[in-house]
Amino acid sequence: MRCRAVFRVSQSRNRAPLLLQPQASRLYSQLQSKHERSTFGIAFDIDGVVLRGRVPIGGSPQALRRLYGESGALKVPFIFLTNGGGIPESRRAIELSDLLGVYILPSQVVQGHSSFKTLLKRYENELTIATGKGEPDLVMSEYGFKKVLSLDEYASYFENIDPVSQYKMWTTKWESSKCSCPKNLVPSFNITSDRVKAAFVVSDPVDWGRDIQVLCDILSSGGLPGDENGQQPPLYFAADDLEYQCSRKIIDAGQLKWFEVIEPTLNRHDLCSLGVMPISQHSKWTSLVLNHQIVRSWHKYSHKTPAAFPSERLGMGAFRIALESVFNRIHCNALDCVIFGKPNPFVFKNAEAILRQLRSSCDDNYINNGNNGSHPFKTLYMIGDNPLVDIKGAKQAGHPWFSILTRTGVFRGKDNHAEFPADLVVDTVEEAVDYILKKESAC
Amino acid sequence: MRCRAVFRVSQSRNRAPLLLQPQASRLYSQLQSKHERSTFGIAFDIDGVVLRGRVPIGGSPQALRRLYGESGALKVPFIFLTNGGGIPESRRAIELSDLLGVYILPSQVVQGHSSFKTLLKRYENELTIATGKGEPDLVMSEYGFKKVLSLDEYASYFENIDPVSQYKMWTTKWESSKCSCPKNLVPSFNITSDRVKAAFVVSDPVDWGRDIQVLCDILSSGGLPGDENGQQPPLYFAADDLEYQCSRKIIDAGQLKWFEVIEPTLNRHDLCSLGVMPISQHSKWTSLVLNHQIVRSWHKYSHKTPAAFPSERLGMGAFRIALESVFNRIHCNALDCVIFGKPNPFVFKNAEAILRQLRSSCDDNYINNGNNGSHPFKTLYMIGDNPLVDIKGAKQAGHPWFSILTRTGVFRGKDNHAEFPADLVVDTVEEAVDYILKKESAC
Repeated sequence: MRCRAVFRVSQSRNRAPLLLQPQASRLYSQLQSKHERSTFGIAFDIDGVVLRGRVPIGGSPQALRRLYGESGALKVPFIFLTNGGGIPESRRAIELSDLLGVYILPSQVVQGHSSFKTLLKRYENELTIATGKGEPDLVMSEYGFKKVLSLDEYASYFENIDPVSQYKMWTTKWESSKCSCPKNLVPSFNITSDRVKAAFVVSDPVDWGRDIQVLCDILSSGGLPGDENGQQPPLYFAADDLEYQCSRKIIDAGQLKWFEVIEPTLNRHDLCSLGVMPISQHSKWTSLVLNHQIVRSWHKYSHKTPAAFPSERLGMGAFRIALESVFNRIHCNALDCVIFGKPNPFVFKNAEAILRQLRSSCDDNYINNGNNGSHPFKTLYMIGDNPLVDIKGAKQAGHPWFSILTRTGVFRGKDNHAEFPADLVVDTVEEAVDYILKKESAC
Repeated sequence: MRCRAVFRVSQSRNRAPLLLQPQASRLYSQLQSKHERSTFGIAFDIDGVVLRGRVPIGGSPQALRRLYGESGALKVPFIFLTNGGGIPESRRAIELSDLLGVYILPSQVVQGHSSFKTLLKRYENELTIATGKGEPDLVMSEYGFKKVLSLDEYASYFENIDPVSQYKMWTTKWESSKCSCPKNLVPSFNITSDRVKAAFVVSDPVDWGRDIQVLCDILSSGGLPGDENGQQPPLYFAADDLEYQCSRKIIDAGQLKWFEVIEPTLNRHDLCSLGVMPISQHSKWTSLVLNHQIVRSWHKYSHKTPAAFPSERLGMGAFRIALESVFNRIHCNALDCVIFGKPNPFVFKNAEAILRQLRSSCDDNYINNGNNGSHPFKTLYMIGDNPLVDIKGAKQAGHPWFSILTRTGVFRGKDNHAEFPADLVVDTVEEAVDYILKKESAC
């Protein structure tokens, strides 16, 4: 396989300006030659580090571009390591390429649910259920699971399983699309008599009440809602983030400019007087901490950051807590579940293997030399915004991981995080990459 | 006030057949005269005792009719005492009248949220939030709360407060109706700056994820989502039922007949061989316990019982547990809440007062004699299907409450309930009323 690590022209409204336009002949190029082979790699968290919603932040486009040579060749192996998800890695790679102005390979995208691939052998031909925002069943199908149904679709086979469904005036993706679904795509197995062998929470659930009800039904009955109690089928979570920061209290310089246009009566001086402060002495006004009133006013006009709100939003971990507390109250045995995603050390081991494979697959000469590319990295950098997830995970994983904490997301402290201090704290991802490249070139 | 305790002609498809058609001149009549004045009263649970979904069960229409005289006058003061709700008592009274074939006064309907009336003085002119299925804000408005908003409407003022709203392809009642809402009905207070002074869970929440998120926002911020931490505003629950039984494993003789028509290959002998059993030796096949496969097959054809499913469904208590567990994880202080509804002894004290008022208000002669009707009842009967709610509540309330447990709902045991044994266990509400009338006439 040859690595398609290239820049890409994008028409996206939100994408970063393309500073470098490689010629077409250079679009497919390789990692730099053997003597330049990288002994380090980088894992970037996405939300709160390189993007906020669909908006690049912290100078991420410029920072990422520095990991490629002038020819467009990838100089430094890097991946995106996120607990987010809900869409296949292939589609997420296209989205990221579009927004960040560099060509991202699907193999460079490691989402919370990517670890579910390791369970394929066990459940490939078993009836399984997948839930969460986006297209959880499509994600699992792309991994190779052959008898996977979304919880949306599964629940539709059990009339009245959701006791308040008549009050929900909504159409699920499944319901709105099933009319156009050819009959030969209807699963050949019997949903109302086959037992569910495993349930997967792929991304943040949307309909908590229905999902908690149906999961309790599946898990307490041994896989068949309405049945008597039975052994709990395995339950897997892609991640366990209690809350996530949409970083609504911080805006970039570009957004500030836009904000000033929309609200011309407020200039930077006014913002200061309203309690708006640069997030650190080094930030040089590239980003600002806003109080909730301004952010709310800003959101009133803004449609650029669909996930924005002035305080943290509940994530998959909160759903897990809700499900667990209800299940444990109605069932004699405590809920048993397996949680993937950061800070699980398995994720970092897996990330290391992917980075190694990325480096080796892009370096044909290296492979041809009989070396399988398995020589260890000297340093792997984890750049994240969440001390409890990114920094804790990297620290638990140990050597060769080096943790860098940015101030553009969950963490906004002046100093280091008290409980899970990072090896380095910076304002933005651009500063992190600058630090790495200087340090590595000096080695 | 004169009591309108009358039978009522109904066109409802599901209502019980009207055995007695009183003449128009008798439609407005009184409780029987003073010398016949009742020294006892009855409180009926609704779901699983007199109705299943919208279908009368356990001979409830006949049983209720025995509480009226031939003239249509109410002989025995009775109320419905349910933890359900979501619609005003006035509307629920019309529904019950329609389904049961007797005229029910709004004051005879005591729902879980009826107790919220006692909080009117405190919050009449304060910004409050109400959530749950049905029309929680209308319920509260009818009680007199002047600045109450549904959580649906409240959330709509805070853009992006629900982080997965873009995945919900639904229209809430509020959103679908607000376009036609005249502007002068928009509340005059400022929702995004006024603090919420109390939150009410009126009925089973529909959108758990959104409600847990917004309630956490309100409760942790001192009443204004997005604000810093503040003192938790009071939170009130109308009830705390962990699960409720839609009695899907039990069908009536009438439903059995219907079932046999739909599934002609299955006669009673076949049902027996499939594990279908009369629920007790005394039931005389008036109802049957079905296994889940038959019920599922039955539901496939049946549209008569919209709330039907073969196992218990999660109720307001499960939502409370989910909210509490999440809130306690993200907030330093534990969630503080007040729970009304059965088995809260307050509810039984309140029910006694309402029954007394019902008796006295319907007996003008009695009031004119200078007696305010406050003489105590010798016995008050609580007829319910849920040992943990109805029986526990009546026992905790003590004298003059006498508990009767039916086998048509949550409880299906042969003998009495182990933890909360009732004073009497019967198969149906009809048997319960028969017992009461025989006992009281012998006194």
